[in-house]
Amino acid sequence: MEIIDSPRAMTAWSDRTRAAGRTICLVPTMGFLHDGHLALMRRAREMAGKVVVSLFVNPMQFGPAEDLARYPRAFERDAELVGAEGVAVLFAPTAEEMYPAGFQTRVVVSGLTDTLCGLSRPGHFDGVTTVVAKLFHLVKPHLAVFGQKDFQQLAIIKKMVIDLNWDVGIIAHPIVRERDGLAMSSRNSYLEPAERRKALCLYNSLQLGRKMVAGGERDGHRVREEVQQYIVSCGDVDIDYVAVVDAETLADCRTINDRSLLALAVKIGRTRLIDNTLLAG
Amino acid sequence: MEIIDSPRAMTAWSDRTRAAGRTICLVPTMGFLHDGHLALMRRAREMAGKVVVSLFVNPMQFGPAEDLARYPRAFERDAELVGAEGVAVLFAPTAEEMYPAGFQTRVVVSGLTDTLCGLSRPGHFDGVTTVVAKLFHLVKPHLAVFGQKDFQQLAIIKKMVIDLNWDVGIIAHPIVRERDGLAMSSRNSYLEPAERRKALCLYNSLQLGRKMVAGGERDGHRVREEVQQYIVSCGDVDIDYVAVVDAETLADCRTINDRSLLALAVKIGRTRLIDNTLLAG
Repeated sequence: MEIIDSPRAMTAWSDRTRAAGRTICLVPTMGFLHDGHLALMRRAREMAGKVVVSLFVNPMQFGPAEDLARYPRAFERDAELVGAEGVAVLFAPTAEEMYPAGFQTRVVVSGLTDTLCGLSRPGHFDGVTTVVAKLFHLVKPHLAVFGQKDFQQLAIIKKMVIDLNWDVGIIAHPIVRERDGLAMSSRNSYLEPAERRKALCLYNSLQLGRKMVAGGERDGHRVREEVQQYIVSCGDVDIDYVAVVDAETLADCRTINDRSLLALAVKIGRTRLIDNTLLAG
Repeated sequence: MEIIDSPRAMTAWSDRTRAAGRTICLVPTMGFLHDGHLALMRRAREMAGKVVVSLFVNPMQFGPAEDLARYPRAFERDAELVGAEGVAVLFAPTAEEMYPAGFQTRVVVSGLTDTLCGLSRPGHFDGVTTVVAKLFHLVKPHLAVFGQKDFQQLAIIKKMVIDLNWDVGIIAHPIVRERDGLAMSSRNSYLEPAERRKALCLYNSLQLGRKMVAGGERDGHRVREEVQQYIVSCGDVDIDYVAVVDAETLADCRTINDRSLLALAVKIGRTRLIDNTLLAG
């Protein structure tokens, strides 16, 4: 595996690889990799001859009061994990190279960005779309894999790709969970043991929602109410939102159909966790 | 010459052309072509094996009170002119294909866009950068040629390309003028004969500025003042701005150097015209 840190060298690699007729699949990450990331890489390997994993803790998607400085980092370990997955390139640029002095361009997807996570994280998704735009231009992938845990990010990136006529196929990969159901996340490393146990209320509440729908419930608001009550009953957690939305448009879902997503963001101590599930099917 | 109107067919053409190892140069236009456009095409032919001219009157870069509806159009004549220039493809998509219902993405370059023409045309440059982003993804050019008449557009597109790590070379082409000096523009067709004569004050004022600098003047503000007074003295015109700025950063130039640009926007009757010149060299 090649480790590339220079944007220019990355583009040169991609030009050579494309000229040789190989398919490139990008897996963008912020590092501190877990089995969820590794699953994305395996998916990428199945679909493309050459996989590029980017590792970049993107300052532009962190708010001023957020956890950029303490975001967990483990480059050596990450490089070892990526190396074992048959990945061709680990692309790890510096923030100075990605955002040199005078940087002033943003890619903005309206509407989809100012709801759900966008409400408590203003500007977050502009940072995501902008860095993904940069990575797409640097790595020139034919395909890119994103996890469904970040369902809003996924919907926004799909929309950006369609609206800007990007010739990149976006692949969604299902959420990878711990044995007890907690969705894998680099931020899980923040959790104290008691918080880790408490965090299971996210998964359990999603299961409750799915059970309601499996039992015949079709009213999105009723599902949302019951799920919310369940989480409150767990005590000592801070709900950011519980929502039942269309997976593509993120519009509020009054009547549940096979695109309806139950999504939530909950703070356990100082750690904000998100999770979601399709309700039907 | 091939005329392509479907975005999908355009991308397929570009994929085939790139796979064959040919260099693609894009010349974006809004049609109603004049010799200035044709000069851009000839420049493109010199640099690339395959030239694509896009013809799209981009609604997103017109303000609600602007001239979108009356913007001059002459597709048959344009196609004939382009055909005579050895162009490979004339790409002329419809507005419905470029902006389908639900379109909601913008590319925004801050700072450079909220000065000069951006002040009287809010949102204009967001429309320009967004449509250029779409065209770049559809046509996949190695190079693109833009005219220096739209100096602010040129500075903004160069910045967008750098900030978003786009692998497209941006070529600037000098302003092409009528015999008497008026910068060529599709909007010149709006001018009544008396207005056409009056419009020459733009070119004459630029010449005055250049003469001052050739004579040793180095104070940008003094040049601006004299040029402005000259235009006012021509009578019956409405100055939007006269500015002496850095050609790249568009920052106000107090002391003239070889990147200093004298730029102006003036309304003659209902027609807003722009022009500019480097002051030194």
